[in-house]
Amino acid sequence: TEASTATAASHINPGIRKEEPKVVDSVVASELDKPLVAYCRCWRSEKFPLCDGAHAKFNKETGDNVGPLLVKK
Amino acid sequence: TEASTATAASHINPGIRKEEPKVVDSVVASELDKPLVAYCRCWRSEKFPLCDGAHAKFNKETGDNVGPLLVKK
Ligand code: FES
Ligand code: FES
Repeated sequence: TEASTATAASHINPGIRKEEPKVVDSVVASELDKPLVAYCRCWRSEKFPLCDGAHAKFNKETGDNVGPLLVKK
Repeated sequence: TEASTATAASHINPGIRKEEPKVVDSVVASELDKPLVAYCRCWRSEKFPLCDGAHAKFNKETGDNVGPLLVKK
């Protein structure tokens, strides 16, 4: 569609670990401090790879609908 | 920065579950089929919320550096 073509032309990560060719993170679920931890998929969190709620501002500004992945033990 | 302002103007999710106000997924790590499962953070996977490797094409086309979250039991 036109929408997806336009979107594909832009970076989705504006500034996280740009020195890395591909930003991959690992979580060992059995070692989590809490029973449920939210991980960012909007690339706007200041606590990346954790979600800090920044997706709300991003969605409001852009009309997008992205949100975190919740990892439970 | 200019780059982040430009990026913030675009959706990062071109088409996944647009009927939902916010796309949130949960994984119960203890119930994973495999010891390690990759979850998509590029919003281009045809198996979303799982990673299917589509981030590679997206990074190549855009110069971005996004990649999955690996969840281990
Ligand atoms: S801050 Fe990025 S998904 Fe919540
Ligand atoms: S397909 Fe999206 S991060 Fe791999």
